[in-house]
Amino acid sequence: MTDYGLEDAFVAVCHAVASQIAPSLHITDITHLIPLGDVRRGAAVLAQAVPYFPAAVHVAVVDPGVGTARRGVAVEAGGSLFVGPDNGLLSVGVAAAGGAVRAVSLTNRALWRETTTATFHGRDIFMPVAARLAAGLPLTEAGDLVEVAGLVTLPPPECRITTSGARVEVVTVDGFGNVQLSLPGADAPRAGLTPGRTVTLAWDGGEVSAPFVTAFGDVAPGEPLCYRDSGDWVAIAVAGGDAARRFGLRPGTRMTLIVT
Amino acid sequence: MTDYGLEDAFVAVCHAVASQIAPSLHITDITHLIPLGDVRRGAAVLAQAVPYFPAAVHVAVVDPGVGTARRGVAVEAGGSLFVGPDNGLLSVGVAAAGGAVRAVSLTNRALWRETTTATFHGRDIFMPVAARLAAGLPLTEAGDLVEVAGLVTLPPPECRITTSGARVEVVTVDGFGNVQLSLPGADAPRAGLTPGRTVTLAWDGGEVSAPFVTAFGDVAPGEPLCYRDSGDWVAIAVAGGDAARRFGLRPGTRMTLIVT
Amino acid sequence: MTDYGLEDAFVAVCHAVASQIAPSLHITDITHLIPLGDVRRGAAVLAQAVPYFPAAVHVAVVDPGVGTARRGVAVEAGGSLFVGPDNGLLSVGVAAAGGAVRAVSLTNRALWRETTTATFHGRDIFMPVAARLAAGLPLTEAGDLVEVAGLVTLPPPECRITTSGARVEVVTVDGFGNVQLSLPGADAPRAGLTPGRTVTLAWDGGEVSAPFVTAFGDVAPGEPLCYRDSGDWVAIAVAGGDAARRFGLRPGTRMTLIVT
Repeated sequence: MTDYGLEDAFVAVCHAVASQIAPSLHITDITHLIPLGDVRRGAAVLAQAVPYFPAAVHVAVVDPGVGTARRGVAVEAGGSLFVGPDNGLLSVGVAAAGGAVRAVSLTNRALWRETTTATFHGRDIFMPVAARLAAGLPLTEAGDLVEVAGLVTLPPPECRITTSGARVEVVTVDGFGNVQLSLPGADAPRAGLTPGRTVTLAWDGGEVSAPFVTAFGDVAPGEPLCYRDSGDWVAIAVAGGDAARRFGLRPGTRMTLIVT
Repeated sequence: MTDYGLEDAFVAVCHAVASQIAPSLHITDITHLIPLGDVRRGAAVLAQAVPYFPAAVHVAVVDPGVGTARRGVAVEAGGSLFVGPDNGLLSVGVAAAGGAVRAVSLTNRALWRETTTATFHGRDIFMPVAARLAAGLPLTEAGDLVEVAGLVTLPPPECRITTSGARVEVVTVDGFGNVQLSLPGADAPRAGLTPGRTVTLAWDGGEVSAPFVTAFGDVAPGEPLCYRDSGDWVAIAVAGGDAARRFGLRPGTRMTLIVT
Repeated sequence: MTDYGLEDAFVAVCHAVASQIAPSLHITDITHLIPLGDVRRGAAVLAQAVPYFPAAVHVAVVDPGVGTARRGVAVEAGGSLFVGPDNGLLSVGVAAAGGAVRAVSLTNRALWRETTTATFHGRDIFMPVAARLAAGLPLTEAGDLVEVAGLVTLPPPECRITTSGARVEVVTVDGFGNVQLSLPGADAPRAGLTPGRTVTLAWDGGEVSAPFVTAFGDVAPGEPLCYRDSGDWVAIAVAGGDAARRFGLRPGTRMTLIVT
């Protein structure tokens, strides 16, 4: 997963580098359309993908600090490895996989490409190291062990159940404009969210009320709905429309959720 | 093939789910950029791809009714299987493969993901079932046999050869704005379309005349042309331009085609 | 690598055709988002990808002359093969691989699809031939040997080191708006470009000055920088921004580069 886009050869070059090292690796692209440098969005998307993969080496590069002092790391969590910059990008996925067990700083230059650049660590460092790890290299060969408590983590989004609902924030917006909130679906009943109830969301600059339903087809086209999304987070959408654009919502928008 | 887009992890999650079930499957992405919920466009694109594949399990999800009463099906046609919602999406590809031989409703929940959601049947139902079918599971294990005559099919587009040409409609528009008509290339001579003739297309709101040629290079840049496209349908294009936008044409636009 | 886009089944059909011929081929997509018919951009992107691949058969199709008299070719260079139209598209990649050793015109119709169209040689000719070559067919079986000196090549971009810097031109612009110049990174010191110097670029209609640095993080967000890019060409960018758009730069823009 990267923010490299699909217009250039950058992604293909990463595949090519890996295939030189370990020709029989099976590589799946998560997405390469993370908005440039948007570490929070990258972290959310990675975390949504991780639970569905078998044990894997996840390589993620959204790295506005490439070429500066930030370190590269490989983190073990839940039987998988996460390779990328230590800027918080990996942290949500690592947590989703059960939390960091061990981590190394990628200091073993013998695993990198012979010449490395300051702008393309995906090709020069992360992918070569990840390919070797995927091919069986022990984690501790990739560099020096570091304290997992010292890894950069993103602050968890606000989520607090109240007597009338919850205080939440927008975690991410998908490509269709569906708005995922920081309230886990499993906690929805505790917040009073049960089928048939009406949810009112109020934020600085707007408000929307929507029925709490199961499927998009449960409301008329163009109508808003509140539901447990496919990652089992409470979300707001508009049937056949773009809720984020219609309501002006963005990651980080804080809201009061009231159930009536 | 889906309308999931490429900005999120949705497609990767489907790959991951399949690879958990059958690690050695060979998966090809047809496209994931079908406009959201556009079943007709999805059906046309799937049908254009199918003839070039070896025997395969085709999974297609353009599914505005996900989570409602519409059923999921697996359809056998021409030695391949088609898995997806029973909303007409599969029907044109099934016809292109020779027509439905057998079909089942996907009622065997033991093949689904353990927990299923109302919004992501691609991940929870279609892909797990398809992966098992691709790995050799007999079709009848996926659910109850249903009448193939009862499968939802899209109405075929109008196509009637006349004394001066044909009555046709726009079937689909590709990413470049090339406009595919409902007239099979094999029927072009019967409609009077032979190299060197001029075609006039008239529809409610517009008209265009173009030479009937073989290749884009046969007309000057910016000029319209009529030709047998790569799927062997009669089509209209503009050399180096976007015919759909220039002429305001959309799927479903009905036209009179006159050859002079 | 093609200009087919990702909205249609065109790319998938090429994969499918190859997999019918040689099911176990490993195929990597370089990109399919070359702007339609932009042979120069295609040539630059292909050349940037080639050095990172193991020995491969590179299939590239950006082919505004499809269906006209231009020939299809397969070119051997640096242990790899390049298959596509003989319109210059392959030439920069071939040069990057060490130069053409042998070439054939794709005249052996027995290797093509049984029926070929005038608009989709990627599916009908280039991919079937490439798949067979990748599966071990000798190059000379694909057609008649032709003089490598007779292959179409793109004129090399201007690059001349001067006493105060260099005369260069814009070679390509990546998806982020980073502007690659025709000055190889290895020649930067000879042009006076060393860390800490300031570069002034002047062209017909504009001028920009930027520090010569190593990484995007070496300048403040929104500031321009000059650096050796990941392909080791001298480039101009804006940290967190789009340099091509900001400065109105395009491939082919000629510039005077002065180091102070």
